[in-house]
Amino acid sequence: MDSLNEQLNFILELDKLKAVYRQALVKTDNNRQENSAEHSWHIAMLAPILLEHVCEDVNLLRVIKMLLIHDIVEIDAGDTFAFSKQSDLDAQHDKELAAANRIFGLLPESQFHEYRSLWLEFEAAESADARFAKAMDRILPLLQNMQNDGGSWAKHGVKKSQVLKRNQYLEGIAPGIWQYVCEQIDLAVTKGWLKDQ
Amino acid sequence: MDSLNEQLNFILELDKLKAVYRQALVKTDNNRQENSAEHSWHIAMLAPILLEHVCEDVNLLRVIKMLLIHDIVEIDAGDTFAFSKQSDLDAQHDKELAAANRIFGLLPESQFHEYRSLWLEFEAAESADARFAKAMDRILPLLQNMQNDGGSWAKHGVKKSQVLKRNQYLEGIAPGIWQYVCEQIDLAVTKGWLKDQ
Repeated sequence: MDSLNEQLNFILELDKLKAVYRQALVKTDNNRQENSAEHSWHIAMLAPILLEHVCEDVNLLRVIKMLLIHDIVEIDAGDTFAFSKQSDLDAQHDKELAAANRIFGLLPESQFHEYRSLWLEFEAAESADARFAKAMDRILPLLQNMQNDGGSWAKHGVKKSQVLKRNQYLEGIAPGIWQYVCEQIDLAVTKGWLKDQ
Repeated sequence: MDSLNEQLNFILELDKLKAVYRQALVKTDNNRQENSAEHSWHIAMLAPILLEHVCEDVNLLRVIKMLLIHDIVEIDAGDTFAFSKQSDLDAQHDKELAAANRIFGLLPESQFHEYRSLWLEFEAAESADARFAKAMDRILPLLQNMQNDGGSWAKHGVKKSQVLKRNQYLEGIAPGIWQYVCEQIDLAVTKGWLKDQ
């Protein structure tokens, strides 16, 4: 079965995402850096748990698939800190597109197209599924930083306006959670974890 | 929103799964031990990728949810090596049941019932969804050990008959993959990674 061999090669390639480390720290494991594989699991869990707060029609299976695959491109492209310079973020996008072609390209043709399209949809963040998925990817670091005395925000001098902008996908798709996030951001400013700008 | 607070407490509790370490090694990250959170991501990816080989009706969303949550009980109960003594495995099951009650109990009532039931269904491994999920959980360590000179099999002197039994869920639900697995097990015996018993 040629397709099975291709699929298993892809699955083995994914092991490399466990070696891509992010800025977020795992408080429960001696504050070591979080890797993108365990992060992907955590946000894939968020989507079904928070689904009742979503006010648009979404397809949960598609959302979870997006979350499971969204960081796979980092195997080649690495992780870029969310609040890097715009020029760095633009360069990152080109590297990620090449990575999507190579890594999803390990799959049989029809799955290559399915997963590459799903990843592009997530990146574009226009459909309701993609906006919900993006919102889940964005809210988790906020929750982690709030548990960790400001975490990567405090370390890198991040501004309130940057975090508000990054979480704005929530405003349309889950207004109740958006309200909660705005309150948390104000609290973080009060605590001195975010700059009030 | 009380339900949101309960849901976010549950999500934060899940961070602890990133500190539960398994016998499997991450070859691509200096052969460090794998944790149960990144393992859960990896097998949740396996299910959609291998779906075409399944010969029974399964609900992929339910299967992926099972795979995402199946190890959460290890936060309290720890990981037990798959080929431990039966008495250790029985004791583990009691600890895991208590863990399921506590951890899923952090969720709002209706979600507590949904996720506890889903976890019990996975453990019972009788429905088609649960057998497919179990098969995905079992095949990944086999693939990893085949990439890693026998990995945890070689280290712990595991027998061919044990690995065959552990992967037998595949026989009914995905015969093509079962055939592949049998061939890999024979190859592992030839290489001296599994005992031929």
